[in-house]
Amino acid sequence: MNAEIIAIGSELLLGQIANTNGQFISKQLADQGINVYHHSVVGDNKQRLISTIQIAEERSDLLIFTGGLGPTKDDLTKETIAEHLGLPLIENKEAMDFIEGYYEKIQQPMSENNRRQALVFEGAAVLPNNNGMAPGIALQKENKIYILLPGPPKEMKPMFTDFAIPYIQQLRGEEVELILSRVLRFYGIGESTLETKLMDLIEGQTNPTIAPLAGIFEVTLRLTAKCDIEEQGERMIDELEKEIFDRVGQFFYGYDDTTLSYETFDMLQEKELTVSCAESLTGGFFGHELTKQPGAGQVLQGGIICYQNEIKMNQLKIPEKVLDEDGAVSELCAELMAENVRELFKSDYGISFTGVAGPDEMEGKPPGTVYIGIASPQETKVYPLKLAGDRNAVRTRTVNYGLFYLLKQLVG
Amino acid sequence: MNAEIIAIGSELLLGQIANTNGQFISKQLADQGINVYHHSVVGDNKQRLISTIQIAEERSDLLIFTGGLGPTKDDLTKETIAEHLGLPLIENKEAMDFIEGYYEKIQQPMSENNRRQALVFEGAAVLPNNNGMAPGIALQKENKIYILLPGPPKEMKPMFTDFAIPYIQQLRGEEVELILSRVLRFYGIGESTLETKLMDLIEGQTNPTIAPLAGIFEVTLRLTAKCDIEEQGERMIDELEKEIFDRVGQFFYGYDDTTLSYETFDMLQEKELTVSCAESLTGGFFGHELTKQPGAGQVLQGGIICYQNEIKMNQLKIPEKVLDEDGAVSELCAELMAENVRELFKSDYGISFTGVAGPDEMEGKPPGTVYIGIASPQETKVYPLKLAGDRNAVRTRTVNYGLFYLLKQLVG
Repeated sequence: MNAEIIAIGSELLLGQIANTNGQFISKQLADQGINVYHHSVVGDNKQRLISTIQIAEERSDLLIFTGGLGPTKDDLTKETIAEHLGLPLIENKEAMDFIEGYYEKIQQPMSENNRRQALVFEGAAVLPNNNGMAPGIALQKENKIYILLPGPPKEMKPMFTDFAIPYIQQLRGEEVELILSRVLRFYGIGESTLETKLMDLIEGQTNPTIAPLAGIFEVTLRLTAKCDIEEQGERMIDELEKEIFDRVGQFFYGYDDTTLSYETFDMLQEKELTVSCAESLTGGFFGHELTKQPGAGQVLQGGIICYQNEIKMNQLKIPEKVLDEDGAVSELCAELMAENVRELFKSDYGISFTGVAGPDEMEGKPPGTVYIGIASPQETKVYPLKLAGDRNAVRTRTVNYGLFYLLKQLVG
Repeated sequence: MNAEIIAIGSELLLGQIANTNGQFISKQLADQGINVYHHSVVGDNKQRLISTIQIAEERSDLLIFTGGLGPTKDDLTKETIAEHLGLPLIENKEAMDFIEGYYEKIQQPMSENNRRQALVFEGAAVLPNNNGMAPGIALQKENKIYILLPGPPKEMKPMFTDFAIPYIQQLRGEEVELILSRVLRFYGIGESTLETKLMDLIEGQTNPTIAPLAGIFEVTLRLTAKCDIEEQGERMIDELEKEIFDRVGQFFYGYDDTTLSYETFDMLQEKELTVSCAESLTGGFFGHELTKQPGAGQVLQGGIICYQNEIKMNQLKIPEKVLDEDGAVSELCAELMAENVRELFKSDYGISFTGVAGPDEMEGKPPGTVYIGIASPQETKVYPLKLAGDRNAVRTRTVNYGLFYLLKQLVG
């Protein structure tokens, strides 16, 4: 079964809102194992809507419409589809009672155009709207399924999961099969390198499948298995994951919707360890990332934002000689910053960031030159990096690498 | 001229991301007076992409494609359109030099599939990519315009505004009428309050028009004038702006694409003043915001991330008595933090942040309880706030209010 999602509304074509309904429905359908091959967006215009429906009927089995079910003049989805399919519109008693009850409750007169919202196709299934007035409609005609949903996400989403999905499942009967998926998140490896290392798996695998996706400064792989029972699917994904980890496991940091800052925070908390930061290049960005997590007080001991050499000397006791001879952007300075902030704040770990964010070079070093120091109870390690991108990219990548290296040290 | 935006990528059809590119381009085209009648989304599939292009050619004059220009196997937009239009692909020297330079800089070997990114249509215009590797392509053929853009928003957006829009404008020639617009940015006032105060202007104005838009944690107004000559349009917008400032000027902070952190940074730099920060609640977020700006060393003297009371006492010399009696989340603590960090780092201004981010209450104070202290050479002021929202919203609003209050003090 192939699905197409058709969003109707001029606000989408004017760029006032993004088609997040299309995203939501796509995700839900993917979980059901239904392929979505097309999204279409069209305005509140009868001719263009009819032509869009005709195109969709040519190429898709399941047509899901969002928007244009409201009471105003430019809401014409229902009337247009009714005309196109040659179906009469009749008033739905439950929907009309609900609308009238609503106006009684707020003690306001009901304007006549609200009646239009209670109209449904004769013979169609009515999808109740528990979060607004216009009900949804579902029907099957000539081997095509048509589902009409309201536009506002808070009405559309629960209606889709609670009523549209069961409607579709029922029509599909025995077609339903279990779909499991798992997202693996990687840091410090580019999309093309990751894909090259896994090319044979990506091309050879049909179940589970591997879909790479470049995120902002990271790469993810989605593994999706079709199966009859859950244990079987989990085992198939586990096996594939093992093969992937053998090749690129050193870049893996977490599953599904997690973030680097959450994983690092979580590992510190689990091991009851604390960290302090000395931030030159990053100016507080690392501390900010860790304090996004509730309970940050248990892991972040404190930090020094030391953009100036004066602060590096006075607060962090970096010898003037080091700043003069090696420079603030140097392996030695990163090492001392990490060690001294660890000592100053009496934390288990100390992490330091120094480098050139750009756009200009500093101490004769080009933008992207970065040193991250991590002082642990056992030793101090410095990670030198050459990072690409503008000022924002260099600073963001630096903090992410800091979180990643710290996480890798904690995991051991 | 009618436009259609065609987004290519399975991640859209799987619901992993929303089509925010479609939204961005629609908005830009609306500003140019170009009608967008359709959005289409299709996967990385050659047959379906060709069929989508054929449909678009039937109904639209300007076809804008996003996505599928990357180095991997499933990026097939360019090859498919080249085949469809019967155009040979040739390597673009500038793009190839840039890609090779990138890999040299990060000192990594370039995998061979990256070469594909430098291929363009023979005879087409090349749209430079200043934020990534794959260049864009623009060409006119048989009265249709085709524009190919990369998928990642941070590459697509600047390429579209800087290169695609001028390309389109040039092709349209005399059709262009002068449209000027100016965005006014406000902080500390809600969208509905702002709209209520300006309702008569918003409804009464046809040229210039006023379009309110709620951003993340801020509100903007876009004033748009149609005119024959630029001076006339600027004057019309100036007059309307004056009327708006008379009513809500105290919430205004800047024009167009600026940010609160840029404006505050810029004012500090212009007045040659420095600031230091003591960050409890915000954990480095304020320092991070200021150091986003190049040249941050001239204005940010230093900072203390003092999530723990121990650090407040040891580094910032907050008396234990204050923490015991008033608490860390108190007006007095904010005042002393701001004064003491100013003194410690010998800066012109000291700013402090203390409060409850949530989800749990602290010292019997509910989430959203916030105190911001600002110590200047003349006096210390404390701003108490009650902020709504989750942990992330409270922390973001706190930093923005800090930047806003500091800016207002600097402007005087």
